[in-house]
Amino acid sequence: MRTTPERIVVCAGFAHALRLLFGGRVLRGPLAVESYGLAFHRAVLAAASVRTVPLTLDEHGARTTELDGLKGVRAALLTPAHQFPTGGPLHPERRVAAVAWARSGGGLILEDDYDGEFRYDREPVGALQGLDPERVVYLGSTSKSISPALRLGWMVLPEHLLAPVLAAKGEREAWTGVTDQLTLADFIDSGHYDRHLRRMRQRYRDRRDRLVATLAARAPHLTTTGIAAGLHAVLHLPPGTEHAVVKAAARQSIALEGLAGYRHPAAVMPARDGLVIGYATPPDHGYGAALDALCRVLPPA
Amino acid sequence: MRTTPERIVVCAGFAHALRLLFGGRVLRGPLAVESYGLAFHRAVLAAASVRTVPLTLDEHGARTTELDGLKGVRAALLTPAHQFPTGGPLHPERRVAAVAWARSGGGLILEDDYDGEFRYDREPVGALQGLDPERVVYLGSTSKSISPALRLGWMVLPEHLLAPVLAAKGEREAWTGVTDQLTLADFIDSGHYDRHLRRMRQRYRDRRDRLVATLAARAPHLTTTGIAAGLHAVLHLPPGTEHAVVKAAARQSIALEGLAGYRHPAAVMPARDGLVIGYATPPDHGYGAALDALCRVLPPA
Repeated sequence: MRTTPERIVVCAGFAHALRLLFGGRVLRGPLAVESYGLAFHRAVLAAASVRTVPLTLDEHGARTTELDGLKGVRAALLTPAHQFPTGGPLHPERRVAAVAWARSGGGLILEDDYDGEFRYDREPVGALQGLDPERVVYLGSTSKSISPALRLGWMVLPEHLLAPVLAAKGEREAWTGVTDQLTLADFIDSGHYDRHLRRMRQRYRDRRDRLVATLAARAPHLTTTGIAAGLHAVLHLPPGTEHAVVKAAARQSIALEGLAGYRHPAAVMPARDGLVIGYATPPDHGYGAALDALCRVLPPA
Repeated sequence: MRTTPERIVVCAGFAHALRLLFGGRVLRGPLAVESYGLAFHRAVLAAASVRTVPLTLDEHGARTTELDGLKGVRAALLTPAHQFPTGGPLHPERRVAAVAWARSGGGLILEDDYDGEFRYDREPVGALQGLDPERVVYLGSTSKSISPALRLGWMVLPEHLLAPVLAAKGEREAWTGVTDQLTLADFIDSGHYDRHLRRMRQRYRDRRDRLVATLAARAPHLTTTGIAAGLHAVLHLPPGTEHAVVKAAARQSIALEGLAGYRHPAAVMPARDGLVIGYATPPDHGYGAALDALCRVLPPA
């Protein structure tokens, strides 16, 4: 990431950032988004009267090459480090295409780096923002790294957006508690935040490894993707089986979501069947039982 | 106040409450407000496209008897415990008139109890909300009792507003940090919050006493009101002198505001000249010097 402290605006989390950016006079829709993403974010955008236009996803991430063909679209919301929820990083060529599109038409990329702190198997993926800080808004929060109970996030803004976003935020700090900000600053300065991240990275990696090993042993006919980073994996399922598997899991008291709930209503790419498996939440003593229950509800080979 | 825990909705402070109430599908303007009030609140309402209609203030507080004559107005924002900024409590007959108006036409009172914890000279003034919990929204926060840096407030809602406000707030806690909420709950349960309030009440009362005694000795020709509660007093000035006194104070490095900045742009009652003197902020070691500087800039008898 490339920034100076002046370009960083603190907010109450990613959804608050969306509201600041689209709730007033800063940015307008329509907004390009990925064909699979968080319905809550689409709801926040819809509440701000922002129409979203889906980009196709493939094994290289969002097809940012489609941006040139989207009429009236001047901004795109992407998850370049770890596509949410399907899982892969955005391919370098797709990154370049996104930034080239933004540059050519006065466009803007919103980079949602929701879990960039937790990468396991490769070198860290650089922020797309580093390619062009004047064309990319970088959005981070403590939701994954500490807890969503801490309402703290930040935007790294291009120069031309700084004044409008600060105006939208208002002169008074209406949202973000100062004690939380000071506590986080102290947590970072003291080095404890880094130690916390290292410890949690190891812990989540262990859980990820256990999930992958269990699935390889007991469901070798199914593919798991998105495992190089983050707190969730996607287990791909045979077409038409997702709904039944999610229901069967619920009967076993496993709260699982299928990919269907993440699909943009206007997506045109073929639907995928799969489970979004968050592996960070179960308590340690219940993780083995949860994995067992998961394997029992999977479709046979 | 009369409520059950289910009727209390936590928010990030008073301004957030206004945004939740008027930013969506809960309440609409026009909204009756007091002729003198916080410009920031009027700005929040204006941003939500809510027109505000001023009520006259006199020595008994807001003339709520005017509500019956305001066409289209179905809600009124009042500061019944301690009119902000002019200072008196709302007279019991005015309270009854406000609730009667709300009952007769399906109206609603918003009770802004911004500093109710700090009352010095009389029995606590009961919340207007107690007269009719189905017609009054009670609004409190920690801004005065702890600090505006803690973004915590609460609404006590009539039954019929509970579902709409919760819907406006959304299913996810997007604003209010959970650690702050838990810390405050612990602070209250442990009895430390009460002790803090008692200690601060004594401290603010001492400051208030010192202000009043100083003004009585050095500016006996000027009247001070609004001193029975809160963290500020109003020093009334001869007509036409306010602007010059505020400027003179600024030259003495005293940050004072005159009443003019609090006046509703559409107010029709005669303007008053006065200083709004917040006595909670200066550090102890600087309070005497600040009082001296204040007295030096006051108009002579």
